[in-house]
Amino acid sequence: MRLMFVGDIVGRAGRDVLTRELPGLRRDLKADFVVVNGENSARGAGITEKILDEILAAGADVVTGGNHSWDQREAMGFIDKRPRLMRPHNYPAGTPGRGAAVFDAPGGRKVLVLNLMGRLFMDPLDDPFAVLERELAKHRLGTTVHAAVLDFHAEATSEKMAMGHFADGRVSLCVGTHTHVPTADLMILDGGTAYQSDAGMTGDYNSVIGMNKEVPVLRFTRKLPTERLSPAEGEATLCGLFLETDDRTGLAKRVEPIRVGGRLSETVPAL
Amino acid sequence: MRLMFVGDIVGRAGRDVLTRELPGLRRDLKADFVVVNGENSARGAGITEKILDEILAAGADVVTGGNHSWDQREAMGFIDKRPRLMRPHNYPAGTPGRGAAVFDAPGGRKVLVLNLMGRLFMDPLDDPFAVLERELAKHRLGTTVHAAVLDFHAEATSEKMAMGHFADGRVSLCVGTHTHVPTADLMILDGGTAYQSDAGMTGDYNSVIGMNKEVPVLRFTRKLPTERLSPAEGEATLCGLFLETDDRTGLAKRVEPIRVGGRLSETVPAL
Amino acid sequence: MRLMFVGDIVGRAGRDVLTRELPGLRRDLKADFVVVNGENSARGAGITEKILDEILAAGADVVTGGNHSWDQREAMGFIDKRPRLMRPHNYPAGTPGRGAAVFDAPGGRKVLVLNLMGRLFMDPLDDPFAVLERELAKHRLGTTVHAAVLDFHAEATSEKMAMGHFADGRVSLCVGTHTHVPTADLMILDGGTAYQSDAGMTGDYNSVIGMNKEVPVLRFTRKLPTERLSPAEGEATLCGLFLETDDRTGLAKRVEPIRVGGRLSETVPAL
Amino acid sequence: MRLMFVGDIVGRAGRDVLTRELPGLRRDLKADFVVVNGENSARGAGITEKILDEILAAGADVVTGGNHSWDQREAMGFIDKRPRLMRPHNYPAGTPGRGAAVFDAPGGRKVLVLNLMGRLFMDPLDDPFAVLERELAKHRLGTTVHAAVLDFHAEATSEKMAMGHFADGRVSLCVGTHTHVPTADLMILDGGTAYQSDAGMTGDYNSVIGMNKEVPVLRFTRKLPTERLSPAEGEATLCGLFLETDDRTGLAKRVEPIRVGGRLSETVPAL
Ligand SMILES: [Fe+2]
Ligand SMILES: [Fe+2]
Ligand SMILES: [Fe+2]
Ligand SMILES: [Fe+2]
Ligand SMILES: [Fe+2]
Ligand SMILES: [Fe+2]
Ligand SMILES: [Fe+2]
Ligand SMILES: [Fe+2]
Repeated sequence: MRLMFVGDIVGRAGRDVLTRELPGLRRDLKADFVVVNGENSARGAGITEKILDEILAAGADVVTGGNHSWDQREAMGFIDKRPRLMRPHNYPAGTPGRGAAVFDAPGGRKVLVLNLMGRLFMDPLDDPFAVLERELAKHRLGTTVHAAVLDFHAEATSEKMAMGHFADGRVSLCVGTHTHVPTADLMILDGGTAYQSDAGMTGDYNSVIGMNKEVPVLRFTRKLPTERLSPAEGEATLCGLFLETDDRTGLAKRVEPIRVGGRLSETVPAL
Repeated sequence: MRLMFVGDIVGRAGRDVLTRELPGLRRDLKADFVVVNGENSARGAGITEKILDEILAAGADVVTGGNHSWDQREAMGFIDKRPRLMRPHNYPAGTPGRGAAVFDAPGGRKVLVLNLMGRLFMDPLDDPFAVLERELAKHRLGTTVHAAVLDFHAEATSEKMAMGHFADGRVSLCVGTHTHVPTADLMILDGGTAYQSDAGMTGDYNSVIGMNKEVPVLRFTRKLPTERLSPAEGEATLCGLFLETDDRTGLAKRVEPIRVGGRLSETVPAL
Repeated sequence: MRLMFVGDIVGRAGRDVLTRELPGLRRDLKADFVVVNGENSARGAGITEKILDEILAAGADVVTGGNHSWDQREAMGFIDKRPRLMRPHNYPAGTPGRGAAVFDAPGGRKVLVLNLMGRLFMDPLDDPFAVLERELAKHRLGTTVHAAVLDFHAEATSEKMAMGHFADGRVSLCVGTHTHVPTADLMILDGGTAYQSDAGMTGDYNSVIGMNKEVPVLRFTRKLPTERLSPAEGEATLCGLFLETDDRTGLAKRVEPIRVGGRLSETVPAL
Repeated sequence: MRLMFVGDIVGRAGRDVLTRELPGLRRDLKADFVVVNGENSARGAGITEKILDEILAAGADVVTGGNHSWDQREAMGFIDKRPRLMRPHNYPAGTPGRGAAVFDAPGGRKVLVLNLMGRLFMDPLDDPFAVLERELAKHRLGTTVHAAVLDFHAEATSEKMAMGHFADGRVSLCVGTHTHVPTADLMILDGGTAYQSDAGMTGDYNSVIGMNKEVPVLRFTRKLPTERLSPAEGEATLCGLFLETDDRTGLAKRVEPIRVGGRLSETVPAL
C-alpha cells in the first residue's frame, strides 16, 4: 500500500499549501491513504468543522490531533459525528472522539490509524505505551489490518524513539508530530516499522513554529504578558512523508520525506 | 569562509565515525573551521581530556558542550587549561570554562564561537538571550570577527527558532543541539543567519537518542529504577552541516546538511 | 475510630524520633490505627525490610510510600511479601506491591488505606483521580469499611486540594505527603472528609527538606555536579495528625496536628 | 521592630478579610511595618491601582507580587509611579517596577523589602540567589537597614528552604508565598533569620488554592478546556505571621503565625 502522512497544518498558510499541493502529490505518488495532522489548522489553534471539510476535500482520509485538538471548542461537539477526525486516544475515558479506528482503503484493504500523545514535558494523559499495547491486541498487522499508522504527538525525542522501538514490527509507521520541525531521521527500524521523529508542520517556516515571530521572541526575552500569538502567513511548506508497505505483512518497504513549497529544501519521492 | 558543525558525539560509536569521516570531509569541503559538540562523547555522558584530544585530532577546532558537560567530573578541572573546550556561556558566574571566545582561522580571520543553553524544559541557567546580547555587543560581525557560530543547546523548537530570529543578522549560524535528532529545516533567515533547529547527534541511530534502547523503553513503560543507560555501539551516523559565509559580512551564503554512515539517509554537499 | 498519620520518615533522625515518640503518642491518644509514610526512611531514600520492621515495631499498622519507594532496590523484591508496606496505587499495572487495601482494626473494624501519587511537577503515573474512583467503587465508607485513609503523595497544592474535594465524603482523611513541610490547613471539608495539604516530614528541619543543607544550596546556586545528598542528623520533629471518625459514617469528627521534638513548635491534641 | 507579613490576597473574599482584620491586628500587635502579597487580589489574578490603594488603606506599608503580578495589564503602566507596589526583583532588566527597596519605618528606622521568585517548576527568571547576593551587598542589616523582609515567591519547598539558609543571618525574615497554603514550620534559623516556607493565602480555603473548586477539579479529572477560574467567595482566612526583631542586629527574636477568620484554625500571637 502507498500512504502519505502530512504534519500539523498551521493556519491559513498551511491550509493553502495543502489545498494546492496535496491533490497532485496524492495523484503522482498513487497514494492509497492519506493521514493529515490538523491540530493547528484553525488560526494556529484547533480545528473547526468547516476546516475539517477543507482538509478532507484536499485529499486527506483521516485528520489527527494533539494537545491543541480542543482549542476551538466546537470540536468537542462535532468530533463524535465526524469519525474521520481523531484525537489522541489516551485522553481520559469519557473524552469525546477517539484515537484508534480502522478505515477502508482501496481494494478492500483496512488501515488502522492510531493517535497518541506523549507525556514528557506535556500535560499527563493516560500512558501512551499501555494504551497502544491495548489497542494493538485488537488487531493483527498483515491479517486483520493491512497497514497501521501511528501519529505520536510528543515533545521529547527520547519518548518518540522509545515509542518507535516499542511499536516496531507492530505498526507500519510511527511518526511524530507536535514540534513543528521536520526531522531528517526517516528509517525503517529493525522490526520493519517506518519511523520519523517528527513530520514537521505544514506552515510558514519564517516564524516561530508557525507563529509570527515577534511575539514569541518577546515571550522569551521579557517575561511579561504579550499580545496573542497569530499564525505566520508567508508561503508555507507542506511537510510529510511517503510510505510504501507490503500488504502481506503491513511492514514498511520504503519511507521518504516530502517537503514542498516555502523556505525548506524541497524533496518529493520519485516513484 | 567554509565552516562545518558536527552534532553531539555519543560514545565510542560516535567517536569512531568522527575519526573515520571528519578528516576526509574537512579536506573535501575545504573547511576552514570546524566546531563539534562533544557533551556525550565519553560513554554517552560528558567528556574527558583524552577524548577531547581525540576529537581535536580528528579535525575539530573547537568542542562545545551542554547540560552533560560536567558528567565526567574531571572536566571541571581541566576545562580552564583547554580553551578549545567550551561549555554553555550562561552557566552562573564562577563556573569553570567559558562559552564565548574568538578563535583564529586561516588567513588571519577570526571566528567567534558561542555556546548557550536553553531553559524551556531544562535546568534554568542565566537568560541565554540576555547573555547573547551582552556577548554580541563586544564584537562586530564582518569587522572584528569574520564569522560567528552559535551552538544553542536546547530542547524546545520554539526557543530555538526564537533564538534564530533573535540572533538573525548578528551571527553566521545558529544551530541547535541536544535533541540528538537532525532536523530538516536548514535555511538562511531574513537577516542572513543560517539556521537549523538541531544538528542531530553523531551516534548510532538504532537506539533511543544514542543509548541502547531496552533501558529507555523500560523507563517509559514501567516507572521503576532500571540499569544505567549505555551508549549504543552499532554503526553511527555523523550528523552536521556545512556553511559557507561571506567574509565581508560574516553572513551565510549557503548551508547544507551532512549525514554520513549508519542508518540515516546519506547526504554530503557537493562543492 | 481514632487514627494517626505520620509524614515521611527521613533517615535515622526521623526513625529515632518515631521510635522514641510514637509508642507514647499511640497510647496517650488511644489510637486504633496508625499509618506512617516511610518513603525516605533509609538514608533519606527508600526503605529496607529491616527498616520496615523498625517502623512497624514503633507502632505503625501500615507504611505508605511515594516517588522514593524504590530507591532501595530491595523493596521491589520484598514488597509483595509484606502487605503492610504500600506504594502509590497508580503505578503502572505489573508494578510490585499495591496502594489500596483493607486492614483490620480493633473491634472487628476495617480500615481502607489508599496511597496515590500526583502528577503535577512529578513523573506521570496513571491518573490518580480515575484510580481513586475505581477503588472507591469497591468499598462503602461506613458500611464495608469503617474508615478510609488516603495518603496523596503530591507536589502541588492545587492538585492536593482538588483531590481533597474529589474524595470529599468518600474517605475519612485525605492527607498530602512529599513536600516535607507540614501545612497549617487542617480542616473538615463540606462532605465530612478531614484534609491537610501536607503532613510534613518526620526528620530534622534544620535542613533542606531533611537533607544536610550545604549540598542542596550548592545545587541551586551553582549548576555543577555535587556530592550526594545525605540526611540531616540533628534532632528531628515527628509530624503528623490525629483523626477521630464516626464509625457509623466513616467521616471525620475531629482532626488535629501533631508535632513533637526538634525545631518546630510542638503541638499534641488533648484527648 | 515589630513586623507583619500577610500572604497572597485572593479576590474579594481576601480583600474583605484584610480590610476587616488588618487594622485591629496592626494595632493590637503594635506592628511598625506590614508587608502584604497582593498578586491575586484582583479577581484572583493580578492587581489594579484601585485595589492597591485598598490594601494600603487597610494598613499595608508595602505590597509584593509574584508570577501573577501582571495579570491585570494596567499594573505594567502604574507600577513605576507607585513605589509601594513591588514585583519579583529577578524579572529581566527592563521590566517595570522593582523588587528591592528600602522603606521608612517609625523612629527613623529603615526596612529593606525584597521580593524574589523561584525557578523550580516555574517560569525561569534570573537566578534569585545571585540577585539576592547582589542586593544584600548594598545594605548591612543592623546598620544601614534595621530589618530586611524577603518574600520568596516559589513553588518547591526545597528551593524555599535552600533560600532560607542562603539568606540566613542576612535578612530578618525569609517567608515563602505562592502555594496558597500556610506551612507550620515557622522557626528561627541558626543565623537568626526567621523562616516560614509559605505564609498561605488570604482567601477562602473552601476552594482549590482560592478558586471555586468545580473548575480546578475538572481540569485534573478531564483534560478538556474549561470555563475560567473564579475566586471563591466564602469567608476568607487572613494568613500571615508576626515577627519581632532586634533593631541592633536586624535579626529575629520571635516569629509566630497569624490565622484569622474562615475555615482554618485561628491563631493570633499574644503580646
Ligand atoms: Fe501542532
Ligand atoms: Fe501539539
Ligand atoms: Fe547531547
Ligand atoms: Fe544535552
Ligand atoms: Fe518524602
Ligand atoms: Fe516524595
Ligand atoms: Fe498567589
Ligand atoms: Fe504565585
